[in-house]
Amino acid sequence: MKTINVGLLGCGTVGTGVAKLLIESNPVIAARLGATLNLKRVADLDIETDRGIQFAQGVLTTDAHAVVNDPDIEIIVEMIGGEGIAKELILKAIANGQQVITANKALLASQGNMLFKAAAEEGVDLAFEAAVGGCMPIIKSLRESLVANRIHSMTGILNGTCNYILTKITGERMPFDDALSEAQQKGYAEADPSLDVDGIDTAHKIAILTALAYGMNINLPDVYIEGISKITPLDVAFAEQFGYRIKLLAISKNKGNQVEARVHPTMIPFDNLLSNVNGTVNAIMVSGDAVGDIMLYGRGAGMMPTASAVISDAVDIARNLMAGTTRRIPALSVQREHIQNIKIMPMDEIVTHYYFRFAALDRPGVLSTISGILGRHDISIQSMQQKGRKTNGSVPVVMVSHLAKEADVQKALTEINRLDVVSEPTMLVRIEDEQLD
Amino acid sequence: MKTINVGLLGCGTVGTGVAKLLIESNPVIAARLGATLNLKRVADLDIETDRGIQFAQGVLTTDAHAVVNDPDIEIIVEMIGGEGIAKELILKAIANGQQVITANKALLASQGNMLFKAAAEEGVDLAFEAAVGGCMPIIKSLRESLVANRIHSMTGILNGTCNYILTKITGERMPFDDALSEAQQKGYAEADPSLDVDGIDTAHKIAILTALAYGMNINLPDVYIEGISKITPLDVAFAEQFGYRIKLLAISKNKGNQVEARVHPTMIPFDNLLSNVNGTVNAIMVSGDAVGDIMLYGRGAGMMPTASAVISDAVDIARNLMAGTTRRIPALSVQREHIQNIKIMPMDEIVTHYYFRFAALDRPGVLSTISGILGRHDISIQSMQQKGRKTNGSVPVVMVSHLAKEADVQKALTEINRLDVVSEPTMLVRIEDEQLD
Repeated sequence: MKTINVGLLGCGTVGTGVAKLLIESNPVIAARLGATLNLKRVADLDIETDRGIQFAQGVLTTDAHAVVNDPDIEIIVEMIGGEGIAKELILKAIANGQQVITANKALLASQGNMLFKAAAEEGVDLAFEAAVGGCMPIIKSLRESLVANRIHSMTGILNGTCNYILTKITGERMPFDDALSEAQQKGYAEADPSLDVDGIDTAHKIAILTALAYGMNINLPDVYIEGISKITPLDVAFAEQFGYRIKLLAISKNKGNQVEARVHPTMIPFDNLLSNVNGTVNAIMVSGDAVGDIMLYGRGAGMMPTASAVISDAVDIARNLMAGTTRRIPALSVQREHIQNIKIMPMDEIVTHYYFRFAALDRPGVLSTISGILGRHDISIQSMQQKGRKTNGSVPVVMVSHLAKEADVQKALTEINRLDVVSEPTMLVRIEDEQLD
Repeated sequence: MKTINVGLLGCGTVGTGVAKLLIESNPVIAARLGATLNLKRVADLDIETDRGIQFAQGVLTTDAHAVVNDPDIEIIVEMIGGEGIAKELILKAIANGQQVITANKALLASQGNMLFKAAAEEGVDLAFEAAVGGCMPIIKSLRESLVANRIHSMTGILNGTCNYILTKITGERMPFDDALSEAQQKGYAEADPSLDVDGIDTAHKIAILTALAYGMNINLPDVYIEGISKITPLDVAFAEQFGYRIKLLAISKNKGNQVEARVHPTMIPFDNLLSNVNGTVNAIMVSGDAVGDIMLYGRGAGMMPTASAVISDAVDIARNLMAGTTRRIPALSVQREHIQNIKIMPMDEIVTHYYFRFAALDRPGVLSTISGILGRHDISIQSMQQKGRKTNGSVPVVMVSHLAKEADVQKALTEINRLDVVSEPTMLVRIEDEQLD
């Protein structure tokens, strides 16, 4: 049986999972592939820690360059993360004619265009199924299964940490800080949680998917990003009264010659399947002209689910190598000469529905002042609720708008937040609900 | 740009969808593939009907053999259905060295082993993504995305007609016959609905998936099949009281040296995502050792969703042809020499939880007689309800069992149904609930 050598760079959590699968599931993989994927070298600065794996003599090394410079290694798996040494080693591997697999969404979101160009010029593949959605095969689905579709939109829960925290805020009416602490205790959130809770990780992922779906370059800087730290149990409770749950959604929509790409807490109806995706799980709904809606659901992070996606890339590449080919599928879904210069719509131009929670002093005329300002900015309200106890002399007044333009909403809120009768900044949550008009 | 010629056999609903995509979405496909898929010939007995497609001169023919014998056609798409002429033409195409795509699950379930062997011997591919789950990429996920996983189980809603009918029975407490009529009026059910409502179509699909998941041959005769025609609004209502919904599930489980493969109405808890999959939609949950649970969701039938899956096969094959290769991925997931002789467990040996509805005359001692018979057959009950009005002098008594063996259950019910105090055959619905002990 033919042997294809794999080199692993970085043996942290996911790297260890990749090594485990290559060793412990080797017969399963071989029966399907018809060849052996052999983990020839593993580079990590720490080669002392016991990872629960029996590496053969000489496999472990601290010298990553020795791995990418090994002419017997055809597939390099980059699991270091970050944008420094990882990028350097990927470029080196590409230059050496090795096929490369990465799960490094931060690097791809910021420098993927350059890396894919480099891979194209050297005629090698740069695969990244594990970069988005962990074990959900969203990259393969967009590039292969939906190949006959014009993609209309994608709506996804792409960060398990945020979804866990929001599930806690929703299910147990826990304040954000407590939910975050619990997530940290359980190992679902980092000590510095900002990459997750500020929506940045989700933005990396939707930036990549947006490029794949519509045949454009990756454009992270123009993705709108808003995190979940402002979400309160009070907003979750009001959302339920309107029939909604709050999720951190990545939203990407094809608007003809522009696209929307935005990450923010979003209210969605109970009957939207995404509203029932709880805990650390990820899910994504993709809408295409031929298929209608399809949804994928699965663990978006963690050692083994992510490693499983890495191995699916490795087997794909190995099948190509066995057939004497590479670059069977273009990295960004369309052939490079078909990549279009499509812009992401500025957030100001987005038109959607809004939930507002005003902290209004309980005085006559306040409501009409607020409504007046909204009206002057072309924002009309379809439902309103004022209930609950007074806190700091103010009562929460919540409203759901008809379709309104983000720029108008921001101007109106700036004006409203300056009112003496409004005691704290207005809370805004965007709504995705096709039933609303 | 390179052109790859496609021949279409059968231009009914899905065939028309395939033709539409190949013509109207040709530029989208070409931008991704880097080649043109050209619909060179279309064979159908009816070449008069207007299908809303502008076929070029000479494309349409009534002679299917002319299509499979055309040496310029590299890919044959079989959309005729049935097990007669379709099989003959597929074998002819294989013998001619053409790559073949089919959505014909009935044919694959009954004769797939022979067809895959023929394709292997001729060195061509026989692709079938559209045969199971319509646009849900379940075949690709099992064969490619989950390649590093030992599959533990699959649980799926694989027939849109049944799911529509059960959704109606559940949501509107509509009797089966009325729900079926409505499905027929809406075009979701055939005039002869037995293939769908008797569970046969679902069995075809799970027979195929079971082979793919565990690396074995297709074994339709040993799949247990039970349809939905006995499900009543009363059972749906009782199910809800226990926290369950009733779905027609295809269940496939890896039991080491045997597998389970069965199709029957099943009660599942509200918090199981499948319980919220309503209408004509399909969904499948797959559990693997590395990924945990993943779920796919999408339209399982219909012209364009199914056609989209066919085109994904066509593009996969075209990419292989452009790379000068075929048979990149083995049809049944593992290399042919690794296909194992794994048996499907006889239904009698299944161990699961059961819901029983007894039509018991309202007399003293009846309950203890029934319980006694159950006890003697090692069936212990974990909850019981007796409510509702008397009909024909009997009251429905419902019970949920602890784990019990199917053979014991069948023996007990035979005995119970013979009792004078039981006025109609006992209703049985199996339960899938990991929370039960």
